[in-house]
Amino acid sequence: MTTKLISSIQNPFIRQLVQLKDKSRERKKSGTFLIEGEREVSLAFKGNYEIETVLFYPELFSLEQLNNLITLQTNLIEISKEVYEKLAYRDTTEGVLAIAKSKEHIISNLKFNTKNPLILVAEAPEKPGNIGALLRTADAANADAVIIANPKTDLYNPNIIRSSVGCVFTNQIATGTTTEIISFLKSKNINIYAAILQESVAYHTQDYTKPTAIVVGTEATGLSEEWRINATQNIIIPMQGEIDSMNVSVAAGILIFEAKRQRDFK
Amino acid sequence: MTTKLISSIQNPFIRQLVQLKDKSRERKKSGTFLIEGEREVSLAFKGNYEIETVLFYPELFSLEQLNNLITLQTNLIEISKEVYEKLAYRDTTEGVLAIAKSKEHIISNLKFNTKNPLILVAEAPEKPGNIGALLRTADAANADAVIIANPKTDLYNPNIIRSSVGCVFTNQIATGTTTEIISFLKSKNINIYAAILQESVAYHTQDYTKPTAIVVGTEATGLSEEWRINATQNIIIPMQGEIDSMNVSVAAGILIFEAKRQRDFK
Repeated sequence: MTTKLISSIQNPFIRQLVQLKDKSRERKKSGTFLIEGEREVSLAFKGNYEIETVLFYPELFSLEQLNNLITLQTNLIEISKEVYEKLAYRDTTEGVLAIAKSKEHIISNLKFNTKNPLILVAEAPEKPGNIGALLRTADAANADAVIIANPKTDLYNPNIIRSSVGCVFTNQIATGTTTEIISFLKSKNINIYAAILQESVAYHTQDYTKPTAIVVGTEATGLSEEWRINATQNIIIPMQGEIDSMNVSVAAGILIFEAKRQRDFK
Repeated sequence: MTTKLISSIQNPFIRQLVQLKDKSRERKKSGTFLIEGEREVSLAFKGNYEIETVLFYPELFSLEQLNNLITLQTNLIEISKEVYEKLAYRDTTEGVLAIAKSKEHIISNLKFNTKNPLILVAEAPEKPGNIGALLRTADAANADAVIIANPKTDLYNPNIIRSSVGCVFTNQIATGTTTEIISFLKSKNINIYAAILQESVAYHTQDYTKPTAIVVGTEATGLSEEWRINATQNIIIPMQGEIDSMNVSVAAGILIFEAKRQRDFK
């Protein structure tokens, strides 16, 4: 454990970290990303992310908090208020940040500890906030995996980390093209229930106790044709109001928890 | 139907409308509020809101759209681009706004067309976006009413109108203190299922086919003691992940659609 102090926002290392926060390209190039917040950093440790360095501003983050968080291998950097504010993304000021190594989220790496996995698939969710909400729901349901088809942003976007309240680290996540994902699910004999209006039945009439993937699309455009063709069954949530759409994370919550209910939360 | 033209943002009437958009106090004082967007204005008409005036910017909102939207009684004001941009709240530019009369949302006014109403109650939701999402879910479920306990903002906050995609006009809504609401529900023999950890059972073990109110609190502080004491039964959604919280609108969606499922979506 080594500790050094950085107090200037002109410091080249700090300027690099600002890039890491702001630019997906920088995160991809370096294979690292920035995490903010005590709970988030703690969940990243728990999720076996390799945390290279923890940065802390001691007036906000105490030595005791720090000792609870880090391991003997963690590099520590004390930062000034100015540097902290430059790097911090959120309004709440917890005084701690970490640099972590990205994981690869390859579909073929997914591992299931059960014969009947329950998987949430989201195709091309537009907003980081929606991805965060889906990850939170998947965590609560203890889903076996979350698969993002054709993602429009990298998973380590600070908005995803924040809106998932760290659940981006607790879920087993893969990304890929829709074709890759369908091929993977079929190869594992996982039933595909796609939230699509055409040729659909009401979601609660189906049996989700077998290996199940629940697939949701975007509010604007729904799921692509490929899912409709390849689904075991298309499902809908019957809607009886004036508006015939639902927030995607609410819809995913209803579907995934219907599966949990059928599985008696085991 | 009279049409006039206002092209200056200095016009006193327009300045008043800006206040109406920005200030809850102005909405309360005048008993009116501003609606933006074609679907939203249309749903307000459908929800029997009294629409005094429709303002439109003809380059964005055509005469045909206008004729489909309004009635013979509607006052029309054509506005310039500059005035429209001053009044518009959203990024999307639909070119239409309306001034509507507020409704009173008194609990004793609630009317149910069924012996077994299904009601969603939310206590003190903090964010307009959360209220909007709850209203959207309640609309989809065709809930008989939404009751907001101790609201922290007025219902005609532009953020609520927007995030509810107009469902603030399609739901039957009442507001009141927690004490008033509990007293109302008890007087109508409506079962109270409060989402509270203490002395709770898993939500899916309960029967929601009788008159049912599902009550959710805020993510930060949950429900107040008064609900715990007065609930027919406290319920929880079993959570099995690293994080023991859920987005309030997702939780409400899971609970209200479990009730719908038990009622076979009738």
